[in-house]
Amino acid sequence: MKQLSCVSLAILAAISTAAMAQEPIQIIEPAKITAPKKVELGKMLFFEPRLSKSGFISCNSCHNLSLGGVDALPTSIGHNWQQGPINSPTVLNAEYGLAQFWDGRAKDLQAQAGGPIANPGEMGYTHELAVLTVNSMPAYQEKFAAIYGKDAVNIDNITNAIAEFEKTLVTPNSPFDLYLQGDKSAISAEVKSGYQLFKDKGCTSCHNGPAVGGTMYMKMGLVKPFHTKNPAQGRKAVTGNEADKFVFKVPTLRNIELTYPYFHDGATWTLEEAVNTMAEIQLGQELTAAETKEMVAFLKSLTGEQPQIVLPILPPSNAKTPRPVPFAD
Amino acid sequence: MKQLSCVSLAILAAISTAAMAQEPIQIIEPAKITAPKKVELGKMLFFEPRLSKSGFISCNSCHNLSLGGVDALPTSIGHNWQQGPINSPTVLNAEYGLAQFWDGRAKDLQAQAGGPIANPGEMGYTHELAVLTVNSMPAYQEKFAAIYGKDAVNIDNITNAIAEFEKTLVTPNSPFDLYLQGDKSAISAEVKSGYQLFKDKGCTSCHNGPAVGGTMYMKMGLVKPFHTKNPAQGRKAVTGNEADKFVFKVPTLRNIELTYPYFHDGATWTLEEAVNTMAEIQLGQELTAAETKEMVAFLKSLTGEQPQIVLPILPPSNAKTPRPVPFAD
Repeated sequence: MKQLSCVSLAILAAISTAAMAQEPIQIIEPAKITAPKKVELGKMLFFEPRLSKSGFISCNSCHNLSLGGVDALPTSIGHNWQQGPINSPTVLNAEYGLAQFWDGRAKDLQAQAGGPIANPGEMGYTHELAVLTVNSMPAYQEKFAAIYGKDAVNIDNITNAIAEFEKTLVTPNSPFDLYLQGDKSAISAEVKSGYQLFKDKGCTSCHNGPAVGGTMYMKMGLVKPFHTKNPAQGRKAVTGNEADKFVFKVPTLRNIELTYPYFHDGATWTLEEAVNTMAEIQLGQELTAAETKEMVAFLKSLTGEQPQIVLPILPPSNAKTPRPVPFAD
Repeated sequence: MKQLSCVSLAILAAISTAAMAQEPIQIIEPAKITAPKKVELGKMLFFEPRLSKSGFISCNSCHNLSLGGVDALPTSIGHNWQQGPINSPTVLNAEYGLAQFWDGRAKDLQAQAGGPIANPGEMGYTHELAVLTVNSMPAYQEKFAAIYGKDAVNIDNITNAIAEFEKTLVTPNSPFDLYLQGDKSAISAEVKSGYQLFKDKGCTSCHNGPAVGGTMYMKMGLVKPFHTKNPAQGRKAVTGNEADKFVFKVPTLRNIELTYPYFHDGATWTLEEAVNTMAEIQLGQELTAAETKEMVAFLKSLTGEQPQIVLPILPPSNAKTPRPVPFAD
């Protein structure tokens, strides 16, 4: 009898696992680090303000790992306090995206990493100067040599290392992941109702997969227009197709509680407002106050364990290192 | 005979220790953390960009713990990319200073910490808004309550916690400290010659104590004038005494290899140049190339173990949190 029970339990567990496998959202796996030296080097470069013209702005400035991988501003602050054109997307779980940037103009994290360094409105540097800077420091030279071979400080390897570090920035073990893995008590009844609503209303048609987003492009304002002062054209800027106007990469909803303000224009500060806007303009629906509350509770269950980062100690500049130019412009 | 040798060795060791005790430079002790919760809270606040008007600048922006506790710029970048008036001093071992800021206008680290938050040219915020911001987040409220008691989020406790964290930012076990502790092989013959020169030339009359500086004020340009475009008046701005014109706190030389560019105007980028300038304007001496080289070797032996900092994860803003104002001005 006892043994039969065990068998029954095993069958139930198998059924439960099979059911979970059909969920539109999958768990985030912890990072598997296969090249720790590359990750460590990438971390140094991610926190390296000398990849910017001013010597002040690093990747972490706008993708702050203390703040959910964002700057928590509507649009970012760039070189000389220039106002950025679009909301900074989170670097957390970014590897799950089908491409990078809101308009998907970079095919992967490595391609993305080179963008801000050379963007005059962001880090304001050049790839040539970034390479000169890194290559001027023996401590960096040695690390590049050990990983990439001799004389290997170049922009491809700089961005490769940054991307390898970024791939480790995943946030597993959110309450919702624990639930997906079978711990039914990991989330409240309210969260469960919110998840059911999230599926029933059709949110999962765009927000699915391990990152609860990032798997496709979609028009912002599918049913009703999205009202914004932000001039971003979305995919149209990449493809040139009029049909791609206002089509953006569907953002991840992982850690959405942390990555306010919302949407590509960063004009929406609360999850309640964001949820209602999405329901209205993408699905043509109006949520009741109770539904909004449940949906928000579900979204907050997607906040995972944040990466534990030991701040890197960067090597000192020397006479060969290009000097920062913070105030020349 | 063998026992006699041991006694002799013990006597020699005692003599050696006594001699060390008379050295003008003392070792830096590792931090003794007696209030770990306060330190942890202080670390969060040190990395908290929401203590600035823009939501972008934290203590760590200009006292970057990846870069020797400085921004490695001539003068700092403040709110709206304003150019700061003076070189950012390192936060490392800052507790050893007789006072804070180049002109000593803050009596201690706690008094210092409130300055940049409310300085319109630095973080550009107000103490009132800083308190409102921190107090808006339940995670902060709980931490303050556990440490300081109920309703204890105020500027005094915010700066108290920051100061408690900063007191842990010491850099023990530099090669020179190991030497002072009896490991004669910890530094090279060149470093030893440099140290002897450092004493013989009279550098230790100002640069002494555990921080190799920070124990007194001294005129910049004692023997010959210091040529600079920087208008800072030094202690005169605090005391009103004409005699205090160009009198500054003697900076620490700990980790001086990392805390370029040098002097209060941040106009000198290399240690060689800094050493020669000091010899000339403070001591009326000219060093030979060999002497400069030895002196620089000695100074580099003062680079200690940098604090290992696990990046804090900051709580999310909510509807009560004042919103950042990065671009309004």
